[in-house]
Amino acid sequence: MDTVADTSRLIAADKVQGAKIYNATGDNLGSIDEIMIDEKSGKIAYAIMSFGGFLGIGSQYHPLPWSMLRYDANLGGYVVNADRAQFKGAPAYGRWH
Amino acid sequence: MDTVADTSRLIAADKVQGAKIYNATGDNLGSIDEIMIDEKSGKIAYAIMSFGGFLGIGSQYHPLPWSMLRYDANLGGYVVNADRAQFKGAPAYGRWH
Repeated sequence: MDTVADTSRLIAADKVQGAKIYNATGDNLGSIDEIMIDEKSGKIAYAIMSFGGFLGIGSQYHPLPWSMLRYDANLGGYVVNADRAQFKGAPAYGRWH
Repeated sequence: MDTVADTSRLIAADKVQGAKIYNATGDNLGSIDEIMIDEKSGKIAYAIMSFGGFLGIGSQYHPLPWSMLRYDANLGGYVVNADRAQFKGAPAYGRWH
């Protein structure tokens, strides 16, 4: 149960887009490329992390459930409990839109 | 209860931003300036509609619950069950960020 002091943080969607994603040890894994919203419920279905590539060329994209991302104020980005290796084995997508 | 044929539509957040908002008779009321997300739940807390002004100067902003917006494919934007007059009487905000 959240403590009384645990306030709900609201964030603007355009601040989420481009936010960095880190693993638990603070290594940068990628960034949030897009968030997909279920229109009916207004709930984020998943975020899309972009990683790899250089200057936007060769980037790969990977969907992440929003629940996997936890904002870390010290890092100024999101921490995901996973690591690049887990994404290497998983399906990755080229430019999706 | 939704019919089986009623598919959940997913939309990218950056497509929501800037989408036009219409009233029930198809008049353009404004557009979606931003969507505010509750970070913990990943749910849209509210959208912010911008209206009025000219070339971005003098625009007013008004928060709208996401549930008030219904996507209309014919109009290519969102319909809200309200009208400009209702917003005129309501609190409006200047540039909020």
